[in-house]
Amino acid sequence: MNVSFDDLHKAFESRVRLGIMSALAVNDSLDFSALKEFLDVTDGNLATHIKKLEKEGFIEVEKSFIDNKPNTKYSMTPDGKKAFDDYLNVMEEIIKAQKNS
Amino acid sequence: MNVSFDDLHKAFESRVRLGIMSALAVNDSLDFSALKEFLDVTDGNLATHIKKLEKEGFIEVEKSFIDNKPNTKYSMTPDGKKAFDDYLNVMEEIIKAQKNS
Repeated sequence: MNVSFDDLHKAFESRVRLGIMSALAVNDSLDFSALKEFLDVTDGNLATHIKKLEKEGFIEVEKSFIDNKPNTKYSMTPDGKKAFDDYLNVMEEIIKAQKNS
Repeated sequence: MNVSFDDLHKAFESRVRLGIMSALAVNDSLDFSALKEFLDVTDGNLATHIKKLEKEGFIEVEKSFIDNKPNTKYSMTPDGKKAFDDYLNVMEEIIKAQKNS
């Protein structure tokens, strides 16, 4: 098998972080409650995983006010997009290798 | 997007465990040194991940002697095979969802 598991970025070793990236890959930006609803996780859990992805530089935060209420939107950075694409490509290789076996 | 991230078993939230399962999916059984060479990890790291997969009931251990030397072989259980297939199916859905976006 010719798959490099080392290329699977550790940032995605979490289904919540995979879910966040998947959601942000298909939406220009999402706010906290949209992500929370999509992933069905607690506030604390989501916040932890968002922070990790932010720290990696894979997502970015935009804070603003809507009707005088704070609104926080998350979007994927170009680095995040590249890392996520790379991750999915390696996973695709793993899947192919299993199917050919 | 209609992907259930909850179906991604936590046991596979590790590239080393993914690697072990991938190797055992295409080989009836492998010993410790073969797995170690395949994954390029330390003894301690590999042992930890093997223990986790064993605890989940996803791999099983067969201890024997070859030329009076202890030999430990690992293989995938039917439960492990099913869980790994399920995991790859969900990953495949995630990949498809990204490509269609």
